[in-house]
Amino acid sequence: MRVAYTEQLSDLTGELAAMCGLAEVAMQRATQALLQADLALAEQVIGENDRIDDMRLQCEEKAFALLALQSPVAGDLRIVVSGIHIVADVERMGQLALHVAKIARRRHPAHVLPEDVRGYFAEMGKVAVTQAARTREVLLSRDLDEAAALETGDEPMDDLHKHLFSVMMDSDWPHGVAAAVDMTLLGRFYERYADHAVEVARRVVFLVTGKLPEPGTPELTGVTPTGV
Amino acid sequence: MRVAYTEQLSDLTGELAAMCGLAEVAMQRATQALLQADLALAEQVIGENDRIDDMRLQCEEKAFALLALQSPVAGDLRIVVSGIHIVADVERMGQLALHVAKIARRRHPAHVLPEDVRGYFAEMGKVAVTQAARTREVLLSRDLDEAAALETGDEPMDDLHKHLFSVMMDSDWPHGVAAAVDMTLLGRFYERYADHAVEVARRVVFLVTGKLPEPGTPELTGVTPTGV
Repeated sequence: MRVAYTEQLSDLTGELAAMCGLAEVAMQRATQALLQADLALAEQVIGENDRIDDMRLQCEEKAFALLALQSPVAGDLRIVVSGIHIVADVERMGQLALHVAKIARRRHPAHVLPEDVRGYFAEMGKVAVTQAARTREVLLSRDLDEAAALETGDEPMDDLHKHLFSVMMDSDWPHGVAAAVDMTLLGRFYERYADHAVEVARRVVFLVTGKLPEPGTPELTGVTPTGV
Repeated sequence: MRVAYTEQLSDLTGELAAMCGLAEVAMQRATQALLQADLALAEQVIGENDRIDDMRLQCEEKAFALLALQSPVAGDLRIVVSGIHIVADVERMGQLALHVAKIARRRHPAHVLPEDVRGYFAEMGKVAVTQAARTREVLLSRDLDEAAALETGDEPMDDLHKHLFSVMMDSDWPHGVAAAVDMTLLGRFYERYADHAVEVARRVVFLVTGKLPEPGTPELTGVTPTGV
């Protein structure tokens, strides 16, 4: 009974990490679909999102069954309760990758992004995917230094996001309103994706220490920096 | 002991409803601040957001303590686990109202919104606040019909959101890129706020029946309707 219980706890962790891996691959492909106007890749991300949803349900059911049948306490209870929070964040990361893929599909065969801003999104995609990969590792290692480093790793995303707005707000912006609307949404999707990765890391800190870390940089609200 | 336990469960529900009430008032004020360029009201929403964060922490701690000390099962366990999900959604509603207030503050004394689109946001604000009020009631009543009606109640928000994009994408849009960027973000904030209200209602259905309802309309991705 105890062995099965320990296995169930470790299964839950493994599934969360696997789910995070799916959200990571989804964002990597969605970004490529966006940058290269690659319809097949966009369709693949959209088609495979159900797998993330299915894993969410499975993880939630596992967590519920553990609570109902094993009444975990102390550290074990923190694993399960954190798992409930983490699964919601990771599912959201998958949704945000899905949104990026849907915008790429909607504009196909046209490119969503004017050529001169694609570099920002290549960079945002890189930060997002790297953060997701580190989150996946932290879920398995429960390394507190790595979890804290994820918060710092989010800073380039915030900088890119702010810069993006200053580019759009520039009075010389030549690409019109439609491109600006798409870019505003996309910027928000990448920024929120990375926020969720940080949130998962904070839940891992709680899982290990029993305390949630103080939030660092307050979440950007997706609005332009002061004065722009 | 049993009496205290029952009281703790009912406290948790009451606090979730109270927290939802705070998110409702926050969005009502944030919308007024936005529509009337009312700085004092925007500041009030921003200043009072900490109360929602504090309640989130309290609710999470209560839920954790209930699990650790009472090992609830069956319907009681569903109340606690749903509570963990619901608190995250309601906290997010508060954050989204905060974002609206921050945009209103950032542009003060200027109006964020061109006069001819303020009506859409007045309407989106009305739907958002109404949905939050109904969510608060459903949290207390656990009425399944009311919970299901919340999903239908979200439809006007989706329609308004779509319409907003078609207005901005119109080639005659005279208000420039900066206004379109703000409106894109604001539209997204209102739409997500209402989505979270529906999500809470779905968790109430689970709490009562033990089953999550199938999602209805898939979440809008905040992108323009096909062809625009």
